[in-house]
Amino acid sequence: MRAVVLLSGGLDSATVLAIARAEGYETYALSFRYGQRHVAELDAAARVAAALGAAQHRVAEVDLRWIGGSALTADIPVPKDRADVGADVPVTYVPARNALFLTLALGWAEVLGARDLFAGMNAIDYSGYPDCRPEFLRAFEAMARVGTKAGAEGAAFRVHAPLIELTKADIIRRGIALGVDYAMTRSCYDPVVVPGVAGDALACGRCDSCVLRRKGFVEAGVADPTRYVR
Amino acid sequence: MRAVVLLSGGLDSATVLAIARAEGYETYALSFRYGQRHVAELDAAARVAAALGAAQHRVAEVDLRWIGGSALTADIPVPKDRADVGADVPVTYVPARNALFLTLALGWAEVLGARDLFAGMNAIDYSGYPDCRPEFLRAFEAMARVGTKAGAEGAAFRVHAPLIELTKADIIRRGIALGVDYAMTRSCYDPVVVPGVAGDALACGRCDSCVLRRKGFVEAGVADPTRYVR
Repeated sequence: MRAVVLLSGGLDSATVLAIARAEGYETYALSFRYGQRHVAELDAAARVAAALGAAQHRVAEVDLRWIGGSALTADIPVPKDRADVGADVPVTYVPARNALFLTLALGWAEVLGARDLFAGMNAIDYSGYPDCRPEFLRAFEAMARVGTKAGAEGAAFRVHAPLIELTKADIIRRGIALGVDYAMTRSCYDPVVVPGVAGDALACGRCDSCVLRRKGFVEAGVADPTRYVR
Repeated sequence: MRAVVLLSGGLDSATVLAIARAEGYETYALSFRYGQRHVAELDAAARVAAALGAAQHRVAEVDLRWIGGSALTADIPVPKDRADVGADVPVTYVPARNALFLTLALGWAEVLGARDLFAGMNAIDYSGYPDCRPEFLRAFEAMARVGTKAGAEGAAFRVHAPLIELTKADIIRRGIALGVDYAMTRSCYDPVVVPGVAGDALACGRCDSCVLRRKGFVEAGVADPTRYVR
């Protein structure tokens, strides 16, 4: 059975791909070039897709920069060293991004004959992002049912979000058990290119995403393979 | 009050823009370069946006060709001279296209502080397209309410589809009354470039979209300004 898996190249979505594979799906991994400042994650996505045995990996082009309104796509500083990660909707929120990514996944799923979408939404670390909540996923499924040819013919699309209730430490333990090599993944919102360092950029260590990732490895009691600037 | 209006450059969406303006909205027109074979419609959209007084017009890039599955974006012939237009889901259906376009409009609306989206869906001529039905629009609104920061804070997004119950003749009469110059619009799915003809291509006159447009002008009793090949 086929499934489309959203794959950013980060820690969470790599784990989701491993879970989908472990559940027996033939996986079609989908990444996005949307104008994000940190495209190192797309190289990471390609490596992860190959390592975890995705049947296909596509990078869809959809420019979100013109929409603006987010530190990930516009000229707004990425916040650093925040004490209250998860308490609000941060400036790294990209308007309607998850709806957009899931919609493109839905279009591909319809052509592939897949009914299952997998995504790495998490309601604990990302409680401030409205589009990481279960009620959003259910509303999306309802929309998919009435808004597609396959749905109108009776197909029920399902959005699987296997990480939604897990802590970062739980996610890491789950991924390690499934053989995910987290050294391949990239989570940083604001990676730093250091002259003289071979390969891609170092993680800043201070954005929300780095803070959560770092803390997750500590809590999981697993050595963190990430190369941080500090 | 601001509204985002989906503007393809065709007859229907031009009429929708005129209606939104007549209802007093400050209009933000949004078109898409999605890999469609007929990009003449994007030039038409720019002319229509200017003529009808849109406050802004944006063309968003989102490549749908990799998804395939449609005669509008893949190498599948556009059907001609069909007798049963509207009776089924035609091969010109692009998987999840309206969901995608509305989602990008939603992201822009959120940044603009707009709560109203306008789109040209029509349930009569396009009864075969699941994403042209009122139940899809209501499901999309529900998804927008839970999937955006603005929605989570209490905003109710509304998708206006003022053409949804109108015949093509009704749409044309309405647009003429509002001052739409339909000579500016382009509806053809498969326009033909004729050597020696200045400007953009001629309408094929035989695809579903041309058949509906032509019939609409006849039924409205209005001279058809479209330049058809035959």
